[in-house]
Amino acid sequence: MWKQIYKVKNYNQQITFYFKMAKSSFEYVKTFEADDTLLPNTWIVIRLDGKCFHKFSEDHNFSKPNDLRALKLMNYSAFTVMREFNDVTLSYGQSDEYSFVLKKQSSLYKRRASKLLTTINSKFTAAYVYFWSKFFSAENLKYPPAFDGRIVLYPIEENLIDYMKWRQADVHINNLYNTTFWTLVLKGKLSPMQVFCYTFRQNTVFLAQYHQIKMKYCFKNST
Amino acid sequence: MWKQIYKVKNYNQQITFYFKMAKSSFEYVKTFEADDTLLPNTWIVIRLDGKCFHKFSEDHNFSKPNDLRALKLMNYSAFTVMREFNDVTLSYGQSDEYSFVLKKQSSLYKRRASKLLTTINSKFTAAYVYFWSKFFSAENLKYPPAFDGRIVLYPIEENLIDYMKWRQADVHINNLYNTTFWTLVLKGKLSPMQVFCYTFRQNTVFLAQYHQIKMKYCFKNST
Amino acid sequence: MWKQIYKVKNYNQQITFYFKMAKSSFEYVKTFEADDTLLPNTWIVIRLDGKCFHKFSEDHNFSKPNDLRALKLMNYSAFTVMREFNDVTLSYGQSDEYSFVLKKQSSLYKRRASKLLTTINSKFTAAYVYFWSKFFSAENLKYPPAFDGRIVLYPIEENLIDYMKWRQADVHINNLYNTTFWTLVLKGKLSPMQVFCYTFRQNTVFLAQYHQIKMKYCFKNST
Amino acid sequence: MWKQIYKVKNYNQQITFYFKMAKSSFEYVKTFEADDTLLPNTWIVIRLDGKCFHKFSEDHNFSKPNDLRALKLMNYSAFTVMREFNDVTLSYGQSDEYSFVLKKQSSLYKRRASKLLTTINSKFTAAYVYFWSKFFSAENLKYPPAFDGRIVLYPIEENLIDYMKWRQADVHINNLYNTTFWTLVLKGKLSPMQVFCYTFRQNTVFLAQYHQIKMKYCFKNST
Repeated sequence: MWKQIYKVKNYNQQITFYFKMAKSSFEYVKTFEADDTLLPNTWIVIRLDGKCFHKFSEDHNFSKPNDLRALKLMNYSAFTVMREFNDVTLSYGQSDEYSFVLKKQSSLYKRRASKLLTTINSKFTAAYVYFWSKFFSAENLKYPPAFDGRIVLYPIEENLIDYMKWRQADVHINNLYNTTFWTLVLKGKLSPMQVFCYTFRQNTVFLAQYHQIKMKYCFKNST
Repeated sequence: MWKQIYKVKNYNQQITFYFKMAKSSFEYVKTFEADDTLLPNTWIVIRLDGKCFHKFSEDHNFSKPNDLRALKLMNYSAFTVMREFNDVTLSYGQSDEYSFVLKKQSSLYKRRASKLLTTINSKFTAAYVYFWSKFFSAENLKYPPAFDGRIVLYPIEENLIDYMKWRQADVHINNLYNTTFWTLVLKGKLSPMQVFCYTFRQNTVFLAQYHQIKMKYCFKNST
Repeated sequence: MWKQIYKVKNYNQQITFYFKMAKSSFEYVKTFEADDTLLPNTWIVIRLDGKCFHKFSEDHNFSKPNDLRALKLMNYSAFTVMREFNDVTLSYGQSDEYSFVLKKQSSLYKRRASKLLTTINSKFTAAYVYFWSKFFSAENLKYPPAFDGRIVLYPIEENLIDYMKWRQADVHINNLYNTTFWTLVLKGKLSPMQVFCYTFRQNTVFLAQYHQIKMKYCFKNST
Repeated sequence: MWKQIYKVKNYNQQITFYFKMAKSSFEYVKTFEADDTLLPNTWIVIRLDGKCFHKFSEDHNFSKPNDLRALKLMNYSAFTVMREFNDVTLSYGQSDEYSFVLKKQSSLYKRRASKLLTTINSKFTAAYVYFWSKFFSAENLKYPPAFDGRIVLYPIEENLIDYMKWRQADVHINNLYNTTFWTLVLKGKLSPMQVFCYTFRQNTVFLAQYHQIKMKYCFKNST
């Protein structure tokens, strides 16, 4: 194994020095690493998701149902990822999740799943912590958060589009429920318990009537 | 799919409310996610590695060959991971890498590889950024760093021990070279170019003679 | 790619001729093949199972509950596999299934899962058809049968032993039911329908009383 | 686990009887089986390849370079596979290999890789042995042969077409070399050694001139 140790710019030429690693007798353990190269010519989607963000959002006084500062920070973290990785061609987020779509032909990190997944997840997480104060100013970050991630392949455009529609439908559904719920609690002066007991079937109607919130379009895409 | 929306403590009883998600017609895309459950009864090792830390360490004026602040921050980030995940039974780091060993019987996240790998990597990264100023004080963090990660299984104790020995031998080898190199540059007043041209074979001897640094023990574990 | 085309023995020396393949522009499709190397230092178990052998056994007049000719043919096919593959260290079969255990350290076919699985499955199948007449003499093989196969890894001896116990318990359970059922049909002169309607709970008792078959030991290993 | 034990046709209705398996305490070993479901909406290609067919063809006096009986038996075995598995939509073979293409939407065996691969490989192998005498008549099958198999996914039609072109180019290249070689040996009265030493560069020209065999078209598809 050759290991790079020093890079020097000399008369406009960059020279990199390597030395050959002495190979230890324990190096056989490297053979236990499995190859996780992803199928070529498929769309690679990486979806990140906040870990325990119910608690995290309460601990940091996120306004309900949506906290603009939090959404902006998510977007900015995604922007940081996209600025760094040119192969990420599209990203889409909601609440505490974000999806990144890599170009079909991407050969970034030789399409090794773990490398792609962890590097993007790590950069996103670092950006989230690094830029926290840019968006939350007075509200201090109380502890380091975490995001999990997964990687999924989609062979054709139609599947990828349906993936995006799936996440978008999810936003609408979540938003409908969250907005309904929190409007009843915050503006309707009901306790959460009352909302559940009393308005199980009525809340959509109620919300529309009293608070002029229209949510008809939400279920257009769902069955 | 049932989604948790609200948790409430009521007369010492915690009640969690769920609503059933309207299932969208796009949800079939979820079937494209591959199962990545890890083989039971094996040691799970997760190794993280700083991305482009050659540049990162220069950009943040790390002292060479070893920066104590940087090493302490790495350790503290690892400590943060271990405090949160009880199934991590051992961790070991050097330079810009860290390995975490999970208990053989761990069923954390049902042993799903991506979930384990990304959650631990993300928590480590967040801690690194979050606790930066605790160790680097005056030196500002200029941009969010990133760590990649990989997951490897070891069936028996012997393989796991050899893994630890492998990483340890790697520390020694790296340290020998780095210490030799930077001593010649910093104390020997040679340019990096001179070091490479002039001392290719002599540097170990030179270093020992002039700078009283003993490195005999370094190769004990390697062949 | 070098392809072997001719082997010749010349003055006690074996010479193999190769020619270099012209590389076609379509060869990139080879990169779509996934690496399926199995984790080192684990027991590799390959289990084969007859496809639609309920029907196959009826079509070939297997005597019930057990056909000695069929069992002997299974054993002989397994023997053929073991004679050819030295790395198979243990095999165990029942009814229409057979398990093969490879040495923990085996590097046969570089531990590639598909290669190991298909080669052993194919050799077994070929032997089953090839040696059919050796055991079934008068009974002609009416059509080519098929066996499916799967590959499982076991990290330690205890897991492997439990695997063998699991398959053995399965034999006993199957045999208990089959022997009970067919004794009632063949010796008890009941129709299969009667057996199910009338003896759902009684058949074990019945069988023991009337036909002196003892099956107490069968459930020793099960909960 | 429910296990089917008996099927009976009763008044035009087929009734299947099941009994619930007593679950043994060893059954946990089943959790060691990995899920190998293939990515949906991709072309599944299964390629089989004769094991040690250089030796096998010599042992069974295959005529060189091509044995018509052997090719017909390969085709008939593939036909047997296609007749049984409707999801196999295309198959293509040469020499001792055969490729089977499953429909993109196939959900056969829930797209489990091992199940698909082994069942098709096993059926092919069984057919090869079963129908041997139909094509080889006097030439007895001396021992059971074996085929290995692999499974590859292709996301789009273009990749699948290139796969077929790749295999076809391979036929032509192999045929060119084999025909050249064996013509020189069998008609040119040269020893294999002479062919290699003397005609390394000349043989294509030689073959065309003396034996009226045209092979120009062979390299059309290759670079």
